[in-house]
Amino acid sequence: MELIYTGKTKDVYRQPDGSYLLRFKDDVTGTDGVFDPGANTVGLQIEGAGRAGLRLTQFFYEKINQAGIPTHFISANIENNEMTVHPARVFGHGVEVILRYRAVGSFRRRYGAYCSEGQPLDGYVEVTLKDDDRHDPLITESALEMLGIMTRREYAQLEDLTRRIGEIVRDELARKQLELYDIKFEFGRLGNDGRIGLIDEISGGNMRAYRHGSAVAPLELEQIMLS
Amino acid sequence: MELIYTGKTKDVYRQPDGSYLLRFKDDVTGTDGVFDPGANTVGLQIEGAGRAGLRLTQFFYEKINQAGIPTHFISANIENNEMTVHPARVFGHGVEVILRYRAVGSFRRRYGAYCSEGQPLDGYVEVTLKDDDRHDPLITESALEMLGIMTRREYAQLEDLTRRIGEIVRDELARKQLELYDIKFEFGRLGNDGRIGLIDEISGGNMRAYRHGSAVAPLELEQIMLS
Repeated sequence: MELIYTGKTKDVYRQPDGSYLLRFKDDVTGTDGVFDPGANTVGLQIEGAGRAGLRLTQFFYEKINQAGIPTHFISANIENNEMTVHPARVFGHGVEVILRYRAVGSFRRRYGAYCSEGQPLDGYVEVTLKDDDRHDPLITESALEMLGIMTRREYAQLEDLTRRIGEIVRDELARKQLELYDIKFEFGRLGNDGRIGLIDEISGGNMRAYRHGSAVAPLELEQIMLS
Repeated sequence: MELIYTGKTKDVYRQPDGSYLLRFKDDVTGTDGVFDPGANTVGLQIEGAGRAGLRLTQFFYEKINQAGIPTHFISANIENNEMTVHPARVFGHGVEVILRYRAVGSFRRRYGAYCSEGQPLDGYVEVTLKDDDRHDPLITESALEMLGIMTRREYAQLEDLTRRIGEIVRDELARKQLELYDIKFEFGRLGNDGRIGLIDEISGGNMRAYRHGSAVAPLELEQIMLS
């Protein structure tokens, strides 16, 4: 088993059978010890964060697979903090797709002159480049096409999948009296036909959830969802 | 005559007949004394910059008006550094439309992982909000619509007008062996029907032009164009 990538919150190994293994770590993105799903730095370590993230990831992936939406998920081994996935080819050097139900975080920082904190946004989708050195810049559909990162057809599929997956996550959170404010996904091209599927994790660190108007921390979110 | 706005490079007055008067100043945007058309600060003062900017603005507006494209331009009084214009209502608190023929400036800073300096971009259009405090953030067509800044139909018109006006400017520069790399425009809704028209200036400070692969400073550009 060959280590091929060391990420901020997990390590990636290639397995002899062609599948990949993601090992979840206890690192959480944030700044100065405060959790921020949009941050590019590891801000803190929380014991058990990796396992809780993997358990929630498994929980959502099983529902998304059941809904017939393509994903890279094969199986999870909770004891070892490991998830086995199909290989996927990312768009360019990787993009993030953000789905926003309420105006918080970087959306509010950018467009604060036009929206109030927490204002409903009705499933707004935007794409950023995974590029730590350039602070994950926002990119338009037309620039994604022009720079050869994805076609307009792929963009439309990405938007559609994002909204469908977002609804699944939002509905599951709502069952626990949690409101999903925003969530970020990663997608890749799967298999020989290059069909677009969800990749990476779907844990508390990828989303902002609120309960009675207050933000719920990732580990707490995972405890609520998995209880 | 009532002063209603003091801008970075000009002041705006309302006239008794309902038209507006723009008085061009000798201030140029930039940082630490170096010209940068994307900068939000006045970086330097250059004697005669206001008049040269106005002369070039008049030069282009007359050609754009002749092409039948709506603009706010009525007349220019070069001696007084003044331009008389129709009133216009901006989109939201104002947006800038950037037309890019080559990858330089903020495009390169954002997407440097996907393009080389000066790479051709074939008339790429993007919109930023005029918001100094938030560093003029990039905004997508769908966010412009969602936040009530403009409709999708207006966005399409804006893109079309931008490309048509850009071609006029690019062709005029080419006559003087100058290559237009990028240019920023402002648009507003004109008259009772709210038709979209070009507003603001079109001077050396709004564009990047190159000659034999080297950037041409705004005042030099104006001297070349008007000689």
